[in-house]
Amino acid sequence: MERVLITGGAGFIGSTVADRLLDEGVEVAILDDFRTGRHEFLTGALDRGAELFEGDVLDQDLLAAAVAGCDTVFHLQANADVRHGLDHPQRDLEQNTIATSNVLEAMRAAGARRICFSSTGSVYGEPAVVPTPEDAPFPVQTSLYGASKIAGEGMIAAYAHGYGFTGLIYRFVSVLGERYTHGHVIDFYRALRRDPTTLRVLGDGRQEKSYLYVQDCVSAMLVASAHHGEAPGAHVYNLGTDATVVVDDSVALITARMGLEPTVEKTGGTRGWAGDSPVIHLDTAKIRSLGWAPTLTIPEAIGRTLDWFEAEPGIALDQESVSS
Amino acid sequence: MERVLITGGAGFIGSTVADRLLDEGVEVAILDDFRTGRHEFLTGALDRGAELFEGDVLDQDLLAAAVAGCDTVFHLQANADVRHGLDHPQRDLEQNTIATSNVLEAMRAAGARRICFSSTGSVYGEPAVVPTPEDAPFPVQTSLYGASKIAGEGMIAAYAHGYGFTGLIYRFVSVLGERYTHGHVIDFYRALRRDPTTLRVLGDGRQEKSYLYVQDCVSAMLVASAHHGEAPGAHVYNLGTDATVVVDDSVALITARMGLEPTVEKTGGTRGWAGDSPVIHLDTAKIRSLGWAPTLTIPEAIGRTLDWFEAEPGIALDQESVSS
Repeated sequence: MERVLITGGAGFIGSTVADRLLDEGVEVAILDDFRTGRHEFLTGALDRGAELFEGDVLDQDLLAAAVAGCDTVFHLQANADVRHGLDHPQRDLEQNTIATSNVLEAMRAAGARRICFSSTGSVYGEPAVVPTPEDAPFPVQTSLYGASKIAGEGMIAAYAHGYGFTGLIYRFVSVLGERYTHGHVIDFYRALRRDPTTLRVLGDGRQEKSYLYVQDCVSAMLVASAHHGEAPGAHVYNLGTDATVVVDDSVALITARMGLEPTVEKTGGTRGWAGDSPVIHLDTAKIRSLGWAPTLTIPEAIGRTLDWFEAEPGIALDQESVSS
Repeated sequence: MERVLITGGAGFIGSTVADRLLDEGVEVAILDDFRTGRHEFLTGALDRGAELFEGDVLDQDLLAAAVAGCDTVFHLQANADVRHGLDHPQRDLEQNTIATSNVLEAMRAAGARRICFSSTGSVYGEPAVVPTPEDAPFPVQTSLYGASKIAGEGMIAAYAHGYGFTGLIYRFVSVLGERYTHGHVIDFYRALRRDPTTLRVLGDGRQEKSYLYVQDCVSAMLVASAHHGEAPGAHVYNLGTDATVVVDDSVALITARMGLEPTVEKTGGTRGWAGDSPVIHLDTAKIRSLGWAPTLTIPEAIGRTLDWFEAEPGIALDQESVSS
């Protein structure tokens, strides 16, 4: 990689990828509309010469300008609001499916042939096999978010097959750590800062989920990307840890760390919301076979996230960054 | 089903569905832009009271008018040109993925909750298991057509999960029979009518494909749809025969029936074109478990198709209907 465009490069994972690529001496271009991305996350990257293109991936002229001269695109921009997909059902289509098609077309026009794509463990729906391997039985989608990501994966694989693209497809579990701004850990944290006596939990508290520390996640992305180099084809990797926590455990970790003992009120039901998967636990043997392993456990990653909230209250408590 | 909208209702399969539903006393509305559909195929249906909406599924006002009062939509309109997907990579996105999202949104607005969708065996890519069952290992897409169909399947399943839709997803093999106007049988027929001495075949002739007679296909669609009634959920069925033919056999059947002995020139390679699957052979145990079985073998279905070409030379030899 010589010059890389990162879409969503001002976001949680995108800005971390930017910093890591700059550490490796790669030229970095960033495209972000700052809908959920934050200028604060780019301070270091811009100081080190990253080039910023401010706007939407759906703006094809801007996208063409941003991808010019790049050999690789980390396409991380997405509507990641899996929970509220049913409130605006075409948002995932526009911001994920159509946006990914636009990125692929801009790459084809510019001669960039390598794409690293943030997919999701949600594409497995309610999986028949747990831990779920990459070649699990053909899933039935349960969320518009998952549907839009499987659409993106499919187009990338077709571009790999038809145009010789190299496609790295990463199916993430939930990612935690510094710059995390979206998901249940911050929802719980904000709720407890508002009212330390009571915490409302969606579902029955038994949803079992896996999490990954953001630096471990980015390391895994870079390891898989380096392994395949420019080999044409679609290369799919689950990224996660080999452990899970249930929501009840995660609540206990967060409240203990905050020194609180709230009354926990559960809405009940095996799913937090329609389309929520009761279990996300991915088989990570494939990425581990490349020599990668996570450095933090899930409780350590949750701890690191809470430390960051405490260090950056201006961001962690900024209700403007709540995307729901 | 009381009133049904058929998108692509003037096409090969759509018009056959229309006739069969009218036989059962169902009210039928047809939406078609006549890009590949034909007015001739609707003569009987319109005489029996089917209502025609002429235009594109991407025209949302027209779509809303067409779906009004319908409880069920057979969404069969699609760009079915799998072979030339790489020449215009956003056509599958627009005409298949976005179009399917529009249909789902129009249904949601109108209170229609049941969708019967023409997917494809191409979603299995180059399958690891043959014959390929519905729950085959998570496939890697090899064509933009397959990618757009897996995108459509995913959205339908998400609507089923989130909004209580009933989704019937049919993964077709290639369909043959009366009104067939697109695919290698008609390509070979037209080529031999132009030049009976030579036939050019894409690939090495060993591509192994399954085919299904159109009336058997429509019977299977109606059997599965009746079986699930209005049960919410996404119900996926492979539709095919338990046999295959290789391209060489299919050439032999066609030339024998036409009384010709052309020199066959092969372009070579295990795939007819980039994204062509060397083997499409679906496991049809699931649809058979509902009591359905095909009435025609593949050679009989090819024969029926050639009979129809001879009976309708105005359509079979009409180059305007070649969609490539």
